[in-house]
Amino acid sequence: ATKPAQKKLDYSNRGMTLEEDLNETNQYYIENNIAIVHKKPTPVQIVNVSYPKRSAAVIKEAYFKQASTTDYNGVYKGRYIDFEAKETKLQTSFPLKNFHEHQIIHMQNVLDHGGIAFIIIRFSQTEEIYYLPAETLISYWNEMLAGGRKSIPKKDIERFGDLIPIGYAPRIDYIKIIMRKFEWDLS
Amino acid sequence: ATKPAQKKLDYSNRGMTLEEDLNETNQYYIENNIAIVHKKPTPVQIVNVSYPKRSAAVIKEAYFKQASTTDYNGVYKGRYIDFEAKETKLQTSFPLKNFHEHQIIHMQNVLDHGGIAFIIIRFSQTEEIYYLPAETLISYWNEMLAGGRKSIPKKDIERFGDLIPIGYAPRIDYIKIIMRKFEWDLS
Ligand SMILES: [Mg+2]
Ligand SMILES: [Mg+2]
Repeated sequence: ATKPAQKKLDYSNRGMTLEEDLNETNQYYIENNIAIVHKKPTPVQIVNVSYPKRSAAVIKEAYFKQASTTDYNGVYKGRYIDFEAKETKLQTSFPLKNFHEHQIIHMQNVLDHGGIAFIIIRFSQTEEIYYLPAETLISYWNEMLAGGRKSIPKKDIERFGDLIPIGYAPRIDYIKIIMRKFEWDLS
Repeated sequence: ATKPAQKKLDYSNRGMTLEEDLNETNQYYIENNIAIVHKKPTPVQIVNVSYPKRSAAVIKEAYFKQASTTDYNGVYKGRYIDFEAKETKLQTSFPLKNFHEHQIIHMQNVLDHGGIAFIIIRFSQTEEIYYLPAETLISYWNEMLAGGRKSIPKKDIERFGDLIPIGYAPRIDYIKIIMRKFEWDLS
């Protein structure tokens, strides 16, 4: 079956996806001179391209590739920031299968090089959004590899993460969390 | 005419493109724990996707989009770094039409937020590769907008930039330039 690509509209009453909210947030940050953060393009393996005369090249065959990094990165007060955004319909835990190993390794690399790495998790049933440091995610990931549980309990996300209140502009003010957590070494 | 997408093989005797050399360089940096830098995926506007039973989704129609940022970014000693790589066959100047306005604005934004922004320019006839600070590029861009010349003279690239010697591993050691230029505020 062939069907037009369309945006997921299933996540919220407002009809906005987490990605759209984050794009608006990042746009707000740029316009208000707070931080420069962009979403990376979806990685695509291009197989076949057609070059019609007098019009734009058309990609005729391509496949979605697994991302080797996270989706968002940028700069805040000179510091490198990097994150991935995910949502779940579950109410009591966040499944680690939402990530793949490349992304975990990438976040560990970022931390090792002095960057700020985190995830933004949205619980869609309750419309709660959390900032969770990559350190916490990686520690659960490693426990999973050692035979532990395959998800992070919501209560641990509440404990080790920060609830991000949903606002109007910016919608998901994750920079405020970073500001608070890192104020001592960002001048 | 429909033809398979293939890598440009026209730039060097080694059959390596500037992009391939930079990817190898970035791989070297990651493996040797020097910096974490990745190329962003090519931005594509996906119009039509087919979902065959029991196999991967196939993108049937898509178009190349203009990038809103530069191609490479990452983290070095906690600092955000960002660059674009370009080559020219000209020998005495580098045409500014290799950039579009979005990229210039993005580089100015990065500088304003304390990031390190630059371009890597390859003169393919002589196999010379230069590191040029984004500040220099932007100053020539603004002169062009004010009616000035539409290219940067090579002698100014030599004066304001740094020649990057081509090596075996890493091939294009741009971090060494950053290390030298910013040593006073990277500890
Ligand atoms: Mg993703
Ligand atoms: Mg480019």
